[in-house]
Amino acid sequence: MTSSRDALSIAQALLRCPSVTPADAGALGVLETLLKDAGFTTHRVTFSEPGAADIDNLYARIGDGAPHLCFAGHTDVVPPGDADAWSHGAFSGDVEGGLLYGRGAVDMKGGIACAVAAVLDHLAAHGGRPKGSISFLITGDEEDVAVNGTVKLLQWAADRGETFDHCIVGEPSNVEAIGDTIKIGRRGSQSGVLIVDGLQGHVAYPHRASNPVPDIAALITALNDEPLDQGSAQFQPSNLEFTSVDVGNPATNVIPAQARAKFNIRFNDHHTQDSLKALIEQRLAAACGNRIRARIEWLPSNADVFVTKPGNFTDLVTASIADVTGRTPDLNTGGGTSDARFIAKYCPVVEFGLVGQTMHQIDERTPVADLDQLTAIYRGVLERYFKS
Amino acid sequence: MTSSRDALSIAQALLRCPSVTPADAGALGVLETLLKDAGFTTHRVTFSEPGAADIDNLYARIGDGAPHLCFAGHTDVVPPGDADAWSHGAFSGDVEGGLLYGRGAVDMKGGIACAVAAVLDHLAAHGGRPKGSISFLITGDEEDVAVNGTVKLLQWAADRGETFDHCIVGEPSNVEAIGDTIKIGRRGSQSGVLIVDGLQGHVAYPHRASNPVPDIAALITALNDEPLDQGSAQFQPSNLEFTSVDVGNPATNVIPAQARAKFNIRFNDHHTQDSLKALIEQRLAAACGNRIRARIEWLPSNADVFVTKPGNFTDLVTASIADVTGRTPDLNTGGGTSDARFIAKYCPVVEFGLVGQTMHQIDERTPVADLDQLTAIYRGVLERYFKS
Ligand SMILES: [Zn+2]
Ligand SMILES: [Zn+2]
Repeated sequence: MTSSRDALSIAQALLRCPSVTPADAGALGVLETLLKDAGFTTHRVTFSEPGAADIDNLYARIGDGAPHLCFAGHTDVVPPGDADAWSHGAFSGDVEGGLLYGRGAVDMKGGIACAVAAVLDHLAAHGGRPKGSISFLITGDEEDVAVNGTVKLLQWAADRGETFDHCIVGEPSNVEAIGDTIKIGRRGSQSGVLIVDGLQGHVAYPHRASNPVPDIAALITALNDEPLDQGSAQFQPSNLEFTSVDVGNPATNVIPAQARAKFNIRFNDHHTQDSLKALIEQRLAAACGNRIRARIEWLPSNADVFVTKPGNFTDLVTASIADVTGRTPDLNTGGGTSDARFIAKYCPVVEFGLVGQTMHQIDERTPVADLDQLTAIYRGVLERYFKS
Repeated sequence: MTSSRDALSIAQALLRCPSVTPADAGALGVLETLLKDAGFTTHRVTFSEPGAADIDNLYARIGDGAPHLCFAGHTDVVPPGDADAWSHGAFSGDVEGGLLYGRGAVDMKGGIACAVAAVLDHLAAHGGRPKGSISFLITGDEEDVAVNGTVKLLQWAADRGETFDHCIVGEPSNVEAIGDTIKIGRRGSQSGVLIVDGLQGHVAYPHRASNPVPDIAALITALNDEPLDQGSAQFQPSNLEFTSVDVGNPATNVIPAQARAKFNIRFNDHHTQDSLKALIEQRLAAACGNRIRARIEWLPSNADVFVTKPGNFTDLVTASIADVTGRTPDLNTGGGTSDARFIAKYCPVVEFGLVGQTMHQIDERTPVADLDQLTAIYRGVLERYFKS
């Protein structure tokens, strides 16, 4: 375990813990030691769920007043895949040619390391206490089923009376270069199953049967046909994707009784889950007419749309980025879901971290220079946030 | 075992053999004894195939000259299903209210019994020998995989130098009443798998993927859209049915790499298997344009279209039917495939038997009066066929 407080050393210490979900492998301990040494009150909280592994989480806070800025993230990583395909060990933390290698280098042990380094710098520069509060909300359960992670940790914190004013999630938000993108929101996600009931029969007597296969093909086309919206001020257009269509009929001479198609919708702030379901069901009914018997089974979803509207907080992050990189970041809401959607229920949240290009890939890596820049940006955010 | 030579007694003896494929349960023996007693030379031929049960078959012939009329059929039956649901035992051969009950009553132990009874009557009336040859080609393997049945028995007969001039298959050809329908042909059957290749990706980034699900939906619609033909003199229009469409993608957030749809085509004499495949592939290419990557894997098919064109032989059967029933039969080519398609490669063949309404159902049954009429019709065919 390192005692060095620079971002690279912290990142290397984290990368050398093979914390593939649900393993922690010492990663949270690296952070807990550093933060405790800096005066943080730390809590290790273990959550359980039937059928899932117990998962360790870390909450650490320094200061007791407002404003309260929280850094959130995860120390678990996706599996390395083909270990032999890596040019440097997936858990080596090797640096070569100015690049730091390892699973989690950008998603997101590198981002957490920069946040910790920036906070330690900030505290050292301000007598060891913030003008307000700083916390770290770190889970070991983000990459897999994520049932024992951020959602429960937020609830646990709320039950203790913790309140947050703003939060930064250190996910790799940037596309090409540090500073090009802040994620200020995410689309919601809602999945469903389209079920078409026909009438089974023999292929030689199609008039005595009702074949659900061409019917579900027509419904898939119809539901894909019309855009859900044209996008909004902060969001790209909502999108529906059919991800599977299945009948499972092994007999070549039988017209099947039922066909099912799975779909997922990524929706923007024109919709709520309820209004979206109503819209899809209305379009389905129109496409079915009086002939096709179809229905939708909606899957449970905890992925509401959220957005932190551009304002003081995003301006502050943007200014810090511009100061360090010279870039003006895009305030973006594209891509998949993240734990930020859970945090958004408690306080305004943005995601800003490293460059995501190599995340989840063989040879995941980040330039060491990016670690320095991200640390400087977080440092600038802290200065501005606690300036008043 | 009965020694009675009337159709009802023979049918009852057959029905009391529980000859669910691949079991024979004595059924072929019933026929062999009767035919041997009447002067037929009989052959029991057992065929084997890896992975399938050995199956017994029966070939019996009387006479050695031309013309040679063959009666073909099968003694195996489909399972009775829920035995308790039958009002009379599925293998009882009970007669009640003028109805003969049992699995195979119409498909097709009843039809075989009538043919045997008619032939025995005919021989008795003509000094025990036909003016030509009469044969029975009876398999125990029609209802299931049918690999050790008619196809091999025909080849076996051909290898022995047997040639047939005409054949009647005693399958239940009639729809409502004895005499309403002769099957003079059957559509061909060809199955295939439509495979659409996309590009896997995450649902949140659909522009980086290519989703094969809406593409296969569009292709299913396109291939269903345009009729294959308008029918022909003897046939209804050819028909394509998609019987399954499958992706098998368990992940709600992944756009799959491939989609597959199974289809079956029942085709008439406008097509050969080759011309049909060319037509479908041409339409597929047009529907794909430059964008969709799709191909078809054709399944092996032994179900060519065939037709016995109306002429002397069908006139002769029609005249016998009209004589007994007063009905003029429809010369039909609808419905599924049958073993007649194999026989058609050797000689003209028609299918004429009992009324098919209860075949493969609980309480399969035939009016005893239908047995009498069918026997009389076959008797009339024999008289006319060997008249010259
Ligand atoms: Zn992540
Ligand atoms: Zn049959």
